[in-house]
Amino acid sequence: MTNRRRILVIGGLAAGPSAAAKAARTNLNAEVMLFEQSETISYGICETPYAIAGMMDENRLVFHTPESLRQQKNIQVKTLHLVERIVPAKQTIVVRDLRSHSLVEYEYEKLIVATGSASNKLAVPGENGRNVFTLGSRDDAINIINYVKTETPKQAVIIGGGYIGMEMSESLRALGMDVTLIHILRLPMEGLELDTRERVLIELEKNGVQFVTNAQTEAFQQDNTGKVRHVITNRGTFAADIVILSLGVSPNVRLACDAKIRLGVTGAIVTDERQQTNVDGIYAAGDCCEVRNIVTGKPMYLPLATVASRTAWIAGENAAGGRAVFKGAIRAVAVKVFGLDIAQVGISSEEAKANGFQVVTSSITANSKVGVMPGSEKITIDLIIDKRSKCVLGANVYGGHGAVLRANTLGVAIQQKLTIGDIARFDLIYSPPFAPLWDPILVAANEAKKKI
Amino acid sequence: MTNRRRILVIGGLAAGPSAAAKAARTNLNAEVMLFEQSETISYGICETPYAIAGMMDENRLVFHTPESLRQQKNIQVKTLHLVERIVPAKQTIVVRDLRSHSLVEYEYEKLIVATGSASNKLAVPGENGRNVFTLGSRDDAINIINYVKTETPKQAVIIGGGYIGMEMSESLRALGMDVTLIHILRLPMEGLELDTRERVLIELEKNGVQFVTNAQTEAFQQDNTGKVRHVITNRGTFAADIVILSLGVSPNVRLACDAKIRLGVTGAIVTDERQQTNVDGIYAAGDCCEVRNIVTGKPMYLPLATVASRTAWIAGENAAGGRAVFKGAIRAVAVKVFGLDIAQVGISSEEAKANGFQVVTSSITANSKVGVMPGSEKITIDLIIDKRSKCVLGANVYGGHGAVLRANTLGVAIQQKLTIGDIARFDLIYSPPFAPLWDPILVAANEAKKKI
Repeated sequence: MTNRRRILVIGGLAAGPSAAAKAARTNLNAEVMLFEQSETISYGICETPYAIAGMMDENRLVFHTPESLRQQKNIQVKTLHLVERIVPAKQTIVVRDLRSHSLVEYEYEKLIVATGSASNKLAVPGENGRNVFTLGSRDDAINIINYVKTETPKQAVIIGGGYIGMEMSESLRALGMDVTLIHILRLPMEGLELDTRERVLIELEKNGVQFVTNAQTEAFQQDNTGKVRHVITNRGTFAADIVILSLGVSPNVRLACDAKIRLGVTGAIVTDERQQTNVDGIYAAGDCCEVRNIVTGKPMYLPLATVASRTAWIAGENAAGGRAVFKGAIRAVAVKVFGLDIAQVGISSEEAKANGFQVVTSSITANSKVGVMPGSEKITIDLIIDKRSKCVLGANVYGGHGAVLRANTLGVAIQQKLTIGDIARFDLIYSPPFAPLWDPILVAANEAKKKI
Repeated sequence: MTNRRRILVIGGLAAGPSAAAKAARTNLNAEVMLFEQSETISYGICETPYAIAGMMDENRLVFHTPESLRQQKNIQVKTLHLVERIVPAKQTIVVRDLRSHSLVEYEYEKLIVATGSASNKLAVPGENGRNVFTLGSRDDAINIINYVKTETPKQAVIIGGGYIGMEMSESLRALGMDVTLIHILRLPMEGLELDTRERVLIELEKNGVQFVTNAQTEAFQQDNTGKVRHVITNRGTFAADIVILSLGVSPNVRLACDAKIRLGVTGAIVTDERQQTNVDGIYAAGDCCEVRNIVTGKPMYLPLATVASRTAWIAGENAAGGRAVFKGAIRAVAVKVFGLDIAQVGISSEEAKANGFQVVTSSITANSKVGVMPGSEKITIDLIIDKRSKCVLGANVYGGHGAVLRANTLGVAIQQKLTIGDIARFDLIYSPPFAPLWDPILVAANEAKKKI
């Protein structure tokens, strides 16, 4: 059986629904159909650590149902439909209906691949324990929430000290658990500058997280009910009632690979700036793609919701006949680690060196508001600067309130390739409840100027 | 008597000490001497509304004493010294020592005029009442604090609904007073967009401030002790135990004018981009000067501490032999009105029209964080755009937390003459505790794009 469809979208988490909606909006005559293997679409995966902590109802993270996408956005949604194969020669996809188990082939004029990413695993014995969780889908979130509710774990082991590891440390501490964070390096949050990472470690320890450094996880010891009871590492064995794996994600590219869609150096799908793959009529968006780093001009793998949304809009618009382009991303990320606000924009000093820049770094700590105002807090800004061009390549901003939004202002400077002199001339707001006479951004730029 | 001095500075509030310090730092051999007619130098005048409200000790707003400036910055400071005349032909200033009443003439090689501004008055009968205050100097602040302490006024009348009027409304309400705010127009805060001004009015009224609209103050009725008891306007008579005049400021230019230093269309001193006046060897900085508006390219009067500091650095550096330039300001201001955070960057829609731009305005309201996160608040962004160039000329940002720092990001866009398309491509942070997937800035830019 073959149904003729104009635009098909594979993947329903974030990029897929966005791309489908944009396509339907761009060409009102397009038939847009979206396939998702799970039951849920359009899910706020980034908010799940806060739902797990009980700060919000997990149900509220489902932003669209198949029905609402159909009614509001004119998209046909097939959940519990697993796309098994893309057949570019026939311009079809082969889909298994997971309810009926039947296979159906759908023709496309344009196809958008938004297959997302999968949580990395360790591949060590015992990892299949029923109290070992990743956090990459709604099912993962619901499984954790249910397990916490029914089994009230007391001792949590988190493996991996990146962004999700930070957020889950805070969430599980908020639920009253003892938290051990096992990390393969000396410091958490690789990719950030050394001082930032040291500050994060202090914040974790200050908030009762046991950080196990330079630790390789070797096995999970299960009891006879299939529950992991101990995590065995080269740095000792740690009791666990619940284990969270936060080891990053990898792009889901099997479908693409089988269809001869080209993958890049990062292992993710290569697209042009119109989000088109090397295969005619096939676009890709979201976590399954690599993107252009605006600072280095090179491809990077940056599985962020912001990038997913943007590439989805571009793919959706172009699949529907538009001419939109995506110029790339700088990397703009933030995380709250207990009382510490942290943001990174642009590239790190290590990346800068590896890319041949003549790197100068400069770090300042300044008041978020006029010092004598109540609520004034310290903010540290690390700038990574190219000595030749005097352009800012990256920044870490951390400390009290206002660190993250200030990072955005520096992010714009990075994206626009402004020099440290340009930043020093920024006309920024001074108002006692909000910012000091010399905003930390200006303090940072003026200090850096002395080194250039 | 004549003492030969290299660099003399007139005025000790904000720009003067900054300029002097920069000059001394730039040329370690320079003799730098600063003259101030009052007893206090280096005073945090912008924080005084918060000191009046009791949020901080007023004494902490004195950032430098003559002694600390001398020791730390190598500046000789003469307080209670009133400069009576600048004599360019002789390169001298004539100074009255207010202690001894003697006149002394000081020679300069370079002179920096930082005479600041004076609070505007109404010039109506009874304005000299001893409970009528302005807020432009440390003496003003101390007088208000002492009066409030000793006389415990219950009914306050504030005249003038600009920035200081807003801050003083909140401060006096915090002290438990009834506050009546008399304003000459229908809405407070001219210069902001209409919707912003209407929102401010709502916030004032929500917080118990009686806003008297379109009201011209005609007289102050004093009792026989010299206290104003009633404020008489064309919109009624209002009982008062204390009166605050917040009618803006005007540049102090008498000295400059007498010395044939050129004044501009704004009534303030004209300088070139090196902060040099038309008179050889004489620089000017701070509230006594006009500055170049980066958006219009025309002079404006912008008596802000940020501009004062910057022009002071430029004047100080150049007076000491440097070659620094000041390219101008965009206007970047913010105020907290009770629970409402408000910022303005760039020019208003009215200014834009008056300057011949083809004006398009666009307004959106969006969440400060992901909607389901605790603490998410609404933020409104009004953009003022030039249809021809697609550049953003100005913005109002108001609402909950994060409005002001977001305005800075838009301010950078304005300063760098970025288009609405550039802004729509900003790679901004998404992180549930800090910002939603589509930051309000991006929502604003995407909405505005539809209108261009």
